Amino acid sequence: MIFINSFDNIFELARGKKATVVVAEACSEHIMDTVEKVLEQGLANMVLVGGEATIKKIAENRGLDASKFKVINATTPEEACKIAVDAVNSGKATSLMKGNVDTSIIMSAILNRENGLRIGKKLSHIAAFKPPHYHKLMFVSDCAININPDFDTKIDIIESAVAAVRNLGINQPKVALLAAKEKVDEKMPITQEWAKIVDIHRAGEKMQNCIIDGPLALDNAVSKQSCQIKGIDSPVGGDADILICPNIEAGNILYKSLSFMANAQNGGVVVGAKCPIVLTSRADSTESKLISIALSVLM
Amino acid sequence: MIFINSFDNIFELARGKKATVVVAEACSEHIMDTVEKVLEQGLANMVLVGGEATIKKIAENRGLDASKFKVINATTPEEACKIAVDAVNSGKATSLMKGNVDTSIIMSAILNRENGLRIGKKLSHIAAFKPPHYHKLMFVSDCAININPDFDTKIDIIESAVAAVRNLGINQPKVALLAAKEKVDEKMPITQEWAKIVDIHRAGEKMQNCIIDGPLALDNAVSKQSCQIKGIDSPVGGDADILICPNIEAGNILYKSLSFMANAQNGGVVVGAKCPIVLTSRADSTESKLISIALSVLM
Repeated sequence: MIFINSFDNIFELARGKKATVVVAEACSEHIMDTVEKVLEQGLANMVLVGGEATIKKIAENRGLDASKFKVINATTPEEACKIAVDAVNSGKATSLMKGNVDTSIIMSAILNRENGLRIGKKLSHIAAFKPPHYHKLMFVSDCAININPDFDTKIDIIESAVAAVRNLGINQPKVALLAAKEKVDEKMPITQEWAKIVDIHRAGEKMQNCIIDGPLALDNAVSKQSCQIKGIDSPVGGDADILICPNIEAGNILYKSLSFMANAQNGGVVVGAKCPIVLTSRADSTESKLISIALSVLM
Repeated sequence: MIFINSFDNIFELARGKKATVVVAEACSEHIMDTVEKVLEQGLANMVLVGGEATIKKIAENRGLDASKFKVINATTPEEACKIAVDAVNSGKATSLMKGNVDTSIIMSAILNRENGLRIGKKLSHIAAFKPPHYHKLMFVSDCAININPDFDTKIDIIESAVAAVRNLGINQPKVALLAAKEKVDEKMPITQEWAKIVDIHRAGEKMQNCIIDGPLALDNAVSKQSCQIKGIDSPVGGDADILICPNIEAGNILYKSLSFMANAQNGGVVVGAKCPIVLTSRADSTESKLISIALSVLM
């Protein structure tokens, strides 16, 4: 069983998997740039879907040997997405990566009820960080997809995050349900929802193979000292693996704060589908893109 | 005019003001500990309200000279809060500090319609940070008081933050209205509210003496590079002084992330009343308490 406590060995572990990543619409310099780095580092085999002639031309111009990847021709972005999703469904690929295509187009292929990648859950985004001032990796969800998740979606988000993190060898992840305070407060509906979710978890009904506590403020989740001062005795306090955010604003702001203000290395994937999905953007650093791809291989 | 770009000279500037801070209910070791440090550093004169005998006894046990502060006797926490508020109203003190008393009790004295400290605005909390990876101070509001501020309260929060920061010598603060993305999105109501607030600001109607832009994601507010990559041309982008949060969960999580994950020095005060109010908690570090008191003197 693998066990990941930092990003130091994530690339080596990904190499060991010999997984295959399929790229939906690979026809662009910046996508081929990432493809080249994945191949250089041997992180995964690559199947590139898109205009075959263009892909081969870009590869040739970069001096990239076309025998190192597989190409499947597609004439439109929609077709490229459908072929990429089919490649996952037929077992030819184990991760899907968005190429040079609008998120809405690839999402519609993924969410297609007949031949998409649904497994009966809402999709969610999970981000992974190694903050310099935290003793281990920190996973945060959802920072990017579900705007104001309802109760059942919150449970999907938690279950998908736990499943993903368990695949990294953290068998019993500690999950903190974040709010603005650690007490249930009738003026803050999210604190009541989190308390109800903890009850369901403790009753053994859903969200198993993890330890969940909440509501917790962020400081309680990441600092044992903060718990001591406030007299909080929580099985998750100060040692959370997964932070579940109350809404997309809180999630996105935490994500950006960890990346830009705490200088935390990071990556992220979409979970809750048949396979992990990598939706990197051009704004991501190369390191962050490669961490995301490695995570998708391992999760 | 003072100008504060870090916390380095904040104590010296506070000393220059020779201000008076009144403490509502000073009878406790941990409050007297803070009082002692304020006096040692000469940050402000102190008026301590509470049981006179107890306060003098605690001072004596600590070897603290009782001639260095003033005591006003009060027999109940409610009376102490009323006396402290009166001291501000009569001009005897310029800042109010919560002592060993429940927040609800001091709030009820502050919010009293006849003899409280109202100035027709909603109260809000403003936190000040010096994140190691940011080029100047960063002010964040509201992380602690308004749970889900309505449109008018959002305007109060912005106006109070701008007034407070201008008192620190930042004449035309740049204000970023934070959301999960930088574009108006009908599925995210906060992005529409922020756009409307920017319109009101640009029409010159309210929220003047500052530059406001939004919606902005946190990375756009604090990183010029992030704006360049996303093609965002914002007068606030990458150089925000003030970050306005969409809801208390986002605000509180950002506050805790900056304190605990980005190791940012910080302090905070309540604004929107006749004087700044310091509500430090026992969990705050000594440095953070002193920064808060110095800010209250300067704001």
